[in-house]
Amino acid sequence: MIAVLGPDCSLQQKAEIVRLVEGHGLRVQVSETGDASLVAVIGGGGEGIIDRLRSHPAVLELRTDAPPYTLVAREQRPEGSRIRFDGFSVGGEEIVVIAGPCAVESRDGILSAARAVAGGGARMLRGGAFKPRTSPYSFQGLGVEGLELLAEARDATGLKVVTEVVTPGEASIVAEHADVLQVGSRNMQNFRLLSAVGEQPRPVLLKRGLMATIEELLLAAEYVVTAGNPRVMLCERGIRTYETSTRNTLDIAAVPVLKERTHLPVIVDPSHAAGRRELVASLSRAAVAAGADGLIVEVHPRPDEALSDGRQSLDPAGFEELMDELRRTAAAVGRHVAPGEPVESRSEAPADRV
Amino acid sequence: MIAVLGPDCSLQQKAEIVRLVEGHGLRVQVSETGDASLVAVIGGGGEGIIDRLRSHPAVLELRTDAPPYTLVAREQRPEGSRIRFDGFSVGGEEIVVIAGPCAVESRDGILSAARAVAGGGARMLRGGAFKPRTSPYSFQGLGVEGLELLAEARDATGLKVVTEVVTPGEASIVAEHADVLQVGSRNMQNFRLLSAVGEQPRPVLLKRGLMATIEELLLAAEYVVTAGNPRVMLCERGIRTYETSTRNTLDIAAVPVLKERTHLPVIVDPSHAAGRRELVASLSRAAVAAGADGLIVEVHPRPDEALSDGRQSLDPAGFEELMDELRRTAAAVGRHVAPGEPVESRSEAPADRV
Amino acid sequence: MIAVLGPDCSLQQKAEIVRLVEGHGLRVQVSETGDASLVAVIGGGGEGIIDRLRSHPAVLELRTDAPPYTLVAREQRPEGSRIRFDGFSVGGEEIVVIAGPCAVESRDGILSAARAVAGGGARMLRGGAFKPRTSPYSFQGLGVEGLELLAEARDATGLKVVTEVVTPGEASIVAEHADVLQVGSRNMQNFRLLSAVGEQPRPVLLKRGLMATIEELLLAAEYVVTAGNPRVMLCERGIRTYETSTRNTLDIAAVPVLKERTHLPVIVDPSHAAGRRELVASLSRAAVAAGADGLIVEVHPRPDEALSDGRQSLDPAGFEELMDELRRTAAAVGRHVAPGEPVESRSEAPADRV
Amino acid sequence: MIAVLGPDCSLQQKAEIVRLVEGHGLRVQVSETGDASLVAVIGGGGEGIIDRLRSHPAVLELRTDAPPYTLVAREQRPEGSRIRFDGFSVGGEEIVVIAGPCAVESRDGILSAARAVAGGGARMLRGGAFKPRTSPYSFQGLGVEGLELLAEARDATGLKVVTEVVTPGEASIVAEHADVLQVGSRNMQNFRLLSAVGEQPRPVLLKRGLMATIEELLLAAEYVVTAGNPRVMLCERGIRTYETSTRNTLDIAAVPVLKERTHLPVIVDPSHAAGRRELVASLSRAAVAAGADGLIVEVHPRPDEALSDGRQSLDPAGFEELMDELRRTAAAVGRHVAPGEPVESRSEAPADRV
Repeated sequence: MIAVLGPDCSLQQKAEIVRLVEGHGLRVQVSETGDASLVAVIGGGGEGIIDRLRSHPAVLELRTDAPPYTLVAREQRPEGSRIRFDGFSVGGEEIVVIAGPCAVESRDGILSAARAVAGGGARMLRGGAFKPRTSPYSFQGLGVEGLELLAEARDATGLKVVTEVVTPGEASIVAEHADVLQVGSRNMQNFRLLSAVGEQPRPVLLKRGLMATIEELLLAAEYVVTAGNPRVMLCERGIRTYETSTRNTLDIAAVPVLKERTHLPVIVDPSHAAGRRELVASLSRAAVAAGADGLIVEVHPRPDEALSDGRQSLDPAGFEELMDELRRTAAAVGRHVAPGEPVESRSEAPADRV
Repeated sequence: MIAVLGPDCSLQQKAEIVRLVEGHGLRVQVSETGDASLVAVIGGGGEGIIDRLRSHPAVLELRTDAPPYTLVAREQRPEGSRIRFDGFSVGGEEIVVIAGPCAVESRDGILSAARAVAGGGARMLRGGAFKPRTSPYSFQGLGVEGLELLAEARDATGLKVVTEVVTPGEASIVAEHADVLQVGSRNMQNFRLLSAVGEQPRPVLLKRGLMATIEELLLAAEYVVTAGNPRVMLCERGIRTYETSTRNTLDIAAVPVLKERTHLPVIVDPSHAAGRRELVASLSRAAVAAGADGLIVEVHPRPDEALSDGRQSLDPAGFEELMDELRRTAAAVGRHVAPGEPVESRSEAPADRV
Repeated sequence: MIAVLGPDCSLQQKAEIVRLVEGHGLRVQVSETGDASLVAVIGGGGEGIIDRLRSHPAVLELRTDAPPYTLVAREQRPEGSRIRFDGFSVGGEEIVVIAGPCAVESRDGILSAARAVAGGGARMLRGGAFKPRTSPYSFQGLGVEGLELLAEARDATGLKVVTEVVTPGEASIVAEHADVLQVGSRNMQNFRLLSAVGEQPRPVLLKRGLMATIEELLLAAEYVVTAGNPRVMLCERGIRTYETSTRNTLDIAAVPVLKERTHLPVIVDPSHAAGRRELVASLSRAAVAAGADGLIVEVHPRPDEALSDGRQSLDPAGFEELMDELRRTAAAVGRHVAPGEPVESRSEAPADRV
Repeated sequence: MIAVLGPDCSLQQKAEIVRLVEGHGLRVQVSETGDASLVAVIGGGGEGIIDRLRSHPAVLELRTDAPPYTLVAREQRPEGSRIRFDGFSVGGEEIVVIAGPCAVESRDGILSAARAVAGGGARMLRGGAFKPRTSPYSFQGLGVEGLELLAEARDATGLKVVTEVVTPGEASIVAEHADVLQVGSRNMQNFRLLSAVGEQPRPVLLKRGLMATIEELLLAAEYVVTAGNPRVMLCERGIRTYETSTRNTLDIAAVPVLKERTHLPVIVDPSHAAGRRELVASLSRAAVAAGADGLIVEVHPRPDEALSDGRQSLDPAGFEELMDELRRTAAAVGRHVAPGEPVESRSEAPADRV
């Protein structure tokens, strides 16, 4: 429920309305949008004060059909929110590319992947240190050692590091090493984990559950934001359907639907949706054309030797080609992708020297 | 199963192989691709002659893992097939746009829609005369009168006419009036209908069933082709999933998957996938970026008065805007969309004068 | 929309109300349920007369939230409808079992199957003469010859014959030979076919589409009934989901949901849902326990030699065992299954003698 | 991969084989089944020793197509496993009923629910103290206070207590108060949580994720068992599909499929599948008829006042009626349900006196 207060509303009236709401045990969020103030009653439960709000002289309009998520709703920031990093931001004109291997497997591997994707124009490096795996017998990641290797790769390339947190107790250690905390699909409704990453001073990349509706995704984001962390990026990565010719079904319409409903930036993961590298370029172009703010793509120096997801990973040459295509597609929708380094100037040195 | 014959294979050997296959009650299809001949054993059931084919001196290679559809498989025409109309073709560089209302509702309505979409750059006019409706109480279309109005709209604008056939007995009457016969989603596995449109001298637009796998779509196309009609366009229009924020879930990955597996052109219907006009532009751009050969878009002169699907129809101004966006997206993937008429030169006269 | 008229309503008032509705171009259906008359405005579109109906003195209550299907709604016959055959009926206390092979393959095969299932207690024989197959290269059925063999099997055993109609033009020829006309899953929204079987003097077994909602199934049944044929049995046969360990996912809850919403009898097909004979007994017991009025089960004299669906067919011994289990389950819910013949008295003679 | 050793295999040979496997960094599990020993190579990765195992004189047979879950596979205990509690066991002839409210809301509420379900024949009391909720604004449970109230209800009634653990750090505190640890649907692939409950000395009730395959459910169970806890009960509770007439789609076939593939007991939750109490009896009977080992049913003293899931909760009278029906259905499949107390002898005293 949102009360819209007009430009003539006095500070005293605003305070009165906030007291009225809080006096009924409800939380409130005030935001200013040009010539109106929006007083959002957070969550539900405000039915008992509808009449009093409606009849208050400062309330121009009372929107009782607001969605069940309040803080992430588009209405809170009609212009969209930007998540700023040094040198670029997510949610602006630039389409930000995150790339790297499924898992951190070795020092050489992650450094080599990082250099390749930095050279191609990626802004961030992905790579799992803690891997949630369907089978207890699959490779579970290098853990803290993996985090340290990711930090080393950041130092060598300037890429920001995105990596997954799988349990609340590890949120702070991951936040020490990483720039962005990823919550994976299987944990999208691990509500304690959402609250835990919401308490960290790092942006969060929240992947849609493979069985989650768009509304559930937005409510999951709301968990993170209510815990104090407004810097959330949403990620569409394919949903589970009856079709088996792809690993998942990329719900491309989720991009415009999310852009309508929330101010948070929207990232697309074409690799997990496709499950096969042959489809990644097509889905990536589609995501950019549909309006996505970024992509997260699996790239591995030698896909055939990857411990997981090799089948859907691009090799460095494939990534360069993809980035060229994305530059053209981005331009067609009035956006751009970071340029990448000219091949001749790419340094192979720093990490090798160590 | 496909036997690959080398360049040195004599005509006599080729005939021998064909006789061997047909002698086992199997159908055969020979196609020439540069320096090899492909002898496809149509359908399945050729297990009994595998050894004899494999040991035949002219057979370079025997592919026993060929997909269950033979005639529509990419391998039959690695370069892709083009369906030619006068003035343009589907499956080439041009991205062909089909547009118009869900149903033909009146003479004025269809003429006005036709002029609008022709002006914007559409090549074909869509509009249902026979409507398959979920409820027996919904508007079922104008029938033959609708076909005549479509033909009149074609004469007034030069657009080709695409309209649906709902039952085998009406395939020939629709073929008399229309340029392309549409088979709707709910009829994708109406096998008698597939055979019936396969006997008509008109290209077919075959829509994917809302519950059909990609393989089932290709097998449905195979029905049309085995009946004698190779000019089939496939249409992805959204599949049914658990997500309810869109009418259906556009399976955008179906575009590259189909392009891998079949030589037939691939069209996307963003309107039925989305169910709301606000999403149509985003999905259309995505489809073009993903590699579609065309789009079929619902456009209505006054969407709010439409007897069906008004919620997902663009108005003429929205269609013009969409076409401008598509021109830019098409260029980014090395393709183009027909230019449309300059607004000043568009004649309103011909149909009104009648 | 349904207008409820009280017991004091005069014949003249009733006629007045019917005229009022029909005068607005709407169809009407009057039914008597004890002390009230229900005047159903068939389909939708009656918004314009709501006020006049509501204010009419004979109208006790106007239900404007009636479902979009009118004639098949439970409210029309709260006691449920029974479809009577000589010797038994569907929709009463007896749980009726329909059994037989997927397709009629040969005279011996269908006679042998018929005797086996009759001996076990089946009331009807299933078997396809016209087979809708996903691939144009699969066995398409024996056609009219198959219908004649089914009729012969009926004469030899007394079983009623259930067989599929796949296209409107063949509805009457199938109706000449069969006792029940089946509309298959892939044709559930082949609306012309629904109307065609609705014009035949035979009960219809309407299978739910493999991705149809319950409401769509009821609207499909409404097509048959509005065409003049009220004797429809609905069949839940598994829906398509992401789960691949069974051929389809039996939506067991469809049984009680359908029993709430419609007066039509509900049959369950465990064989197509399961896709493997090992699961058939478990699903059959579940269907009976859930409240189904009947089962349709695939039984083949020699499942391993079946031309289609052998994997999910029971052999005669398996069918006997199933029937014994069903007798116990039926008793637990206050119902029964036909007894079957004692083995010693089963005649092998009649058909062989011919 | 499983190596089958014959009855003549010496202890020395068995040790040799175990050393061979472990020497390759693989885990091993030996189980004895009558006259053979099964040496299971846990998980995958044993490809490198296939030849050596196959040629070992004590190895009768090497099964390399074993499923990816090893410890929970049916083959490990063809007779099925029983989880014993004092007075009853799960997985034997008795069908065990777990019942109670969705969440513990108050002392009176849980005591009243406990007495009602104990009187009806339930063996265990369900009730959430920690509630995973889709919205951060919904009631999240009473936490530790809820656990204490559950323990009090156990003391008052003799029911065992089943309650949910939502995060690894709370596994031990829940294990102190509860008899069975529940892992909810949204946490089925929260692998750290699975390992955490696997370290507790309490049986685990593992609910299937609402879009998890049966294989994923079994692999999740394998996580618990590899952590040291073999006492796992699996729970089918409905999966997410396109059908919206029920909250979820009960996958009734999961019951026989699970019974084929695993030795673990299978419980069905009809309440969450249905989402409406009117359907609970039908689904419960179906589950018992299909072969389930138990049910978990929502019962609330006053469903209309429940803070969550009231719409799907039975009231005490509805529960009694259900139990009577289940007794009859259980008998039809050769099983039974606990008798319940005669109404007159049910004590209202103990808890009230406190």
